[in-house]
Amino acid sequence: MESAALSQIGLAGLAVMGQNLALNIAEKGFPISVYNRTISKVDETLDRAHREGQLPLTGHYNPKDFVLSIKKPRSIIILVKAGAPVDQTIAALSAHMEPGDTIIDGGNEWYENTERRIVDASANGLLYLGMGVSGGEDGARDDGPCVTYIGEGGSGNFVKMVHNGIEYGDMQLISEAYDVLKNVGGLSNDELAEIFEEWNRGELESFLIEITTDIFKVKDLETGNGHLVDKILDKTGMKGTGKWTVQQAAELSIAAPTIAASLDSRYMSGLKEEREAASEIFKNEGLKEEIENVGDVDKKRLIDDVRQALYASKICSYAQGMNLLRAKSMEKGWGLNLGELARIWKGGCIIRAVFLDRIKQAYQRNPGLANLLVDPEFAREMVQRQSAWRRVVGVAIQKGVSVPGMSASLQYFDTYRRGRLPANLVQAQRDYFGAHTYERIDLPGAYHTEWSKLARNAKL
Amino acid sequence: MESAALSQIGLAGLAVMGQNLALNIAEKGFPISVYNRTISKVDETLDRAHREGQLPLTGHYNPKDFVLSIKKPRSIIILVKAGAPVDQTIAALSAHMEPGDTIIDGGNEWYENTERRIVDASANGLLYLGMGVSGGEDGARDDGPCVTYIGEGGSGNFVKMVHNGIEYGDMQLISEAYDVLKNVGGLSNDELAEIFEEWNRGELESFLIEITTDIFKVKDLETGNGHLVDKILDKTGMKGTGKWTVQQAAELSIAAPTIAASLDSRYMSGLKEEREAASEIFKNEGLKEEIENVGDVDKKRLIDDVRQALYASKICSYAQGMNLLRAKSMEKGWGLNLGELARIWKGGCIIRAVFLDRIKQAYQRNPGLANLLVDPEFAREMVQRQSAWRRVVGVAIQKGVSVPGMSASLQYFDTYRRGRLPANLVQAQRDYFGAHTYERIDLPGAYHTEWSKLARNAKL
Repeated sequence: MESAALSQIGLAGLAVMGQNLALNIAEKGFPISVYNRTISKVDETLDRAHREGQLPLTGHYNPKDFVLSIKKPRSIIILVKAGAPVDQTIAALSAHMEPGDTIIDGGNEWYENTERRIVDASANGLLYLGMGVSGGEDGARDDGPCVTYIGEGGSGNFVKMVHNGIEYGDMQLISEAYDVLKNVGGLSNDELAEIFEEWNRGELESFLIEITTDIFKVKDLETGNGHLVDKILDKTGMKGTGKWTVQQAAELSIAAPTIAASLDSRYMSGLKEEREAASEIFKNEGLKEEIENVGDVDKKRLIDDVRQALYASKICSYAQGMNLLRAKSMEKGWGLNLGELARIWKGGCIIRAVFLDRIKQAYQRNPGLANLLVDPEFAREMVQRQSAWRRVVGVAIQKGVSVPGMSASLQYFDTYRRGRLPANLVQAQRDYFGAHTYERIDLPGAYHTEWSKLARNAKL
Repeated sequence: MESAALSQIGLAGLAVMGQNLALNIAEKGFPISVYNRTISKVDETLDRAHREGQLPLTGHYNPKDFVLSIKKPRSIIILVKAGAPVDQTIAALSAHMEPGDTIIDGGNEWYENTERRIVDASANGLLYLGMGVSGGEDGARDDGPCVTYIGEGGSGNFVKMVHNGIEYGDMQLISEAYDVLKNVGGLSNDELAEIFEEWNRGELESFLIEITTDIFKVKDLETGNGHLVDKILDKTGMKGTGKWTVQQAAELSIAAPTIAASLDSRYMSGLKEEREAASEIFKNEGLKEEIENVGDVDKKRLIDDVRQALYASKICSYAQGMNLLRAKSMEKGWGLNLGELARIWKGGCIIRAVFLDRIKQAYQRNPGLANLLVDPEFAREMVQRQSAWRRVVGVAIQKGVSVPGMSASLQYFDTYRRGRLPANLVQAQRDYFGAHTYERIDLPGAYHTEWSKLARNAKL
């Protein structure tokens, strides 16, 4: 059903996210045109708009009608799969667009694609914006709208990418907390629901803890037997942003081990058949999946320890993400404001959490903060929690329950807070076999040593 | 000093590696021409060839003379910095080369650059080969020459890249063993030299253990006071191959956490000033670099445990590297023979080690082996060592001594050998917030659940 009046905005790409965003915009009173290459999606969206009360939404079945239905200068949001589909959509739409019109990509796109498209679009007089979107329909909170202009070029996509990397970290850490509570502490799903509900009233309060609480409550309706979470296959899907985050961290010389461990865990979860075979092989060699003789576990203390371990691990993961954002911002001259990013993440997106406010404050106190860990408040929190954290990782290791994320965070913490690392030995080795030279702690300059000769002459 | 007779081969790029390789070739009786853009390096090489006994080596000061001094069809090895310098050298030389001549890049080049250059060279009728070289002058061993034709395209460079990634892992793991023995066990450098010497007579026997033994023996000649290793700055350099390995692992969905932890450790070692500041901040909050109240350590047992932890960690790291090679080989159709790679690494290169023979045998027993860890012999070795390994990582965590590499290996092991991971929760979360759907363990198909609604209806 088309309207004669022009729409204020357009949206192309009507998968789950696109439909919901379009309905949201219409619901707020902004007339919107929608388009999708597969036309059944257009009808689906029109149906929903109709059912939700005659929202000002018009559907179009070809790019030309769609573009021409929008008021000039046009703003068109596209929400299609990253990569080639975005290029195809741009080509289809821009043929009918005019100088001064804007295309906004709301998908999880690789930032360099956005930078290329900005240049291409401007050659036709079009404006182009990469806009990271997270978290579905939940809107702004009392701290102001959860949206901001990030910066030029691909910066919006890059920030969204790192947001997703952090999201991988959060999800992995929560799944490890669950694993330890279940397989070390012996907690039932009902107990887990209770614990997570309680955690969601404290420092861990966040969307992901909240939904995890819900997940433990859901019974299995297919079989009418037990909880649904236990019936889900332990193979995790993914869509690329976590991988890009890890690759960018390596590129920018930023350690992001918690995020990397989360990505690796997804990869290893995919090897379900290999893991089952390995489990059998090691059982036959006498090593059970959960090692038995680790002594009694104080359940109440374990629960409290895991809460602290999760919080401390999470801080390390966010520290890694923030440092990655700063490094990229410096490389590209984007001038990202880390505190502002923590603020917009507070409302609406998947990683929204009360503690993002503390991150915002940390960067407000000191915009040049080298690492979240050395902010006075976070430093104190880390020290308060480090014993519990060591106990959790320690008992998991004893028990053979893998905690790659928590463990990576702890190693990150223990590496970062050490003035002296054993990297002196690595430098000695590099100088030994490759004459790469080394520096000294006490004298300036670069040195090379004939190690082999001197060692021969040395008497022990 | 030029000779009228034509050389059998040419070598361009006379840094440390280039000079030594040229002298090696000349020493074996093959007349060689050398060239370097900075001509002092040519004279340096000529001097060395003269001093070492009139070796059949001629020096050239421009690309044309150099190329024309070599017998047709020409083979020219180039050993210059990866990237643009290689392209410049190819351009300078190929102007004077003829169809049928071959350029061999012996540097640590990104494999895609080699694939591009193969295509470019063939347009001029030239042949082009990427040849990874490791380990300096040490030659072949009794198990046959440590050289082989790896495969087409960039496969030689790719294998060398992964070799270097594994090398990063070995060096990091050894430095962690050193750190634990020193800072948990309180061992002196003299004791460390003794222990490493002993280790080099057992399952850990390898070039890197051997040179580490030497390193602990060397006294500081600059100050005449103490051991040199203690005076070396703990900031590690690197040249890119480790980074590429980590990025490729992410690209190919292969978990390589030990190699990644080694790269991250190099990055974090570079943050010396930040680490010193962090150390002070945490000390002021009451957390010393080495935590004190961890109880007595049985030194003899710790040493034996660390040996086992090092060996087990190393196997995991090699398993990661091998899986990365296989994944790439499948992607590119290179047909890499993993056992053959283990064989050539056994002699001459930096990671040469007795235990590579065991890896070779494992792939001979089963070329389709899913993971080194499940080879019957390695599986047994892992099980025998896992208790000691858990004790080492456990005590390091208690003490606050970071062991990111050993810990990453242990987490890898404990993840891989588990039939059931908590990835079911991650899938539930993804389905909750993104309608990504999930599979079940008991029924076929893809499922989506209205978690929030069902949780509201559930009574605990």
